Amino acid sequence: MIKGKDGTIIPKVVIERLPRYYRYFDWLENKMEKISSKKLGDLIGSSASQVRLDLSYFGDFGQQGYGYNIKKLKHELVKILHINIERKFIIVGAGNIGRALTRYNIFKDTDFTLKALFDINPALIGEKIKGVTIYDVKELGAFVKENSIDIAIIAVPKDAANDISAILIQNGIKGILNFAPLDLNVQESFPVENIHIIDKILALSFMIS
Amino acid sequence: MIKGKDGTIIPKVVIERLPRYYRYFDWLENKMEKISSKKLGDLIGSSASQVRLDLSYFGDFGQQGYGYNIKKLKHELVKILHINIERKFIIVGAGNIGRALTRYNIFKDTDFTLKALFDINPALIGEKIKGVTIYDVKELGAFVKENSIDIAIIAVPKDAANDISAILIQNGIKGILNFAPLDLNVQESFPVENIHIIDKILALSFMIS
Repeated sequence: MIKGKDGTIIPKVVIERLPRYYRYFDWLENKMEKISSKKLGDLIGSSASQVRLDLSYFGDFGQQGYGYNIKKLKHELVKILHINIERKFIIVGAGNIGRALTRYNIFKDTDFTLKALFDINPALIGEKIKGVTIYDVKELGAFVKENSIDIAIIAVPKDAANDISAILIQNGIKGILNFAPLDLNVQESFPVENIHIIDKILALSFMIS
Repeated sequence: MIKGKDGTIIPKVVIERLPRYYRYFDWLENKMEKISSKKLGDLIGSSASQVRLDLSYFGDFGQQGYGYNIKKLKHELVKILHINIERKFIIVGAGNIGRALTRYNIFKDTDFTLKALFDINPALIGEKIKGVTIYDVKELGAFVKENSIDIAIIAVPKDAANDISAILIQNGIKGILNFAPLDLNVQESFPVENIHIIDKILALSFMIS
């Protein structure tokens, strides 16, 4: 359970919307000084009242008849989202997705760093991608523990994903971003976010028919 | 607006859950014959009543005291999700994400095909990835129209994404899967699904603190 300023539990859907707010404030910062909840809602695709409710969990940023001060709110969101805190990441699986995430600079604008990649394929072990080494997956547990890794990105085939997540959790990982096309068998309270590309494609295929 | 069997509007959240049901039925098919709404809910992380409500939009598949026949429901979901209909895809942007999606066999188990990649970089034009040709982005509009492309995957930088989506829509694309880290400026009714990797990472960073 994640709690807001006054101790109320913040729903997961609200947390998942915060990075959107951040992206918009980052983009608006040099364009305008303040924005109304109505206009902000139009931008991110929700109502004015939803915007006010979402942001109220974290304190009272807006002012009646004035709106939100963009610089100030962006600064607050940086703190709330811990964008300026050093977070250590690893990627398990150095296949197409793992490699693309390493090459594509996902962590720019944050203080997050990618410490290592892991793979089961002996031919890949020791290779470096953008300066990040691929290690043998046998070393995964020890590495996570010794280096106090915060978040792991799982980009392994479906059948291996649950074994990997068990090793990660046993060794103190705090959160998982899962690209494998299944729902990980972890405790409900454990922080997991999923990116299921095929689900999005199937939903689109349905929507266009 | 997408309507169900009896003409009621199906909420987008329900549509987005259907591929999950499909994945589970596909996996369960060779393991058991039937499953209760309670057990199905436990698996996919919702309540029994949510499962019954979700599936009721598409007709009456369950039977009181028996549950859902897995083979039959999977077959229905294949029809509902149009997994067995030929859909033509393209990917715009042959950078890290576009290349990874081409190499990673996202369309296996479906009748969807990837017809082309597009990029602005002259050095890439003419190259083939897994047999799929990279074309000049200048040819995008004509290609979409002439080949009746159904869905485009946008994997270009943020600043180019809205121009690309405008070209796609003008030339008859029916849906977009967007990897660029912004919300596309399209009509609300136009089918778009977003995969914002950085949003998931920021949400996790917040959740673990």
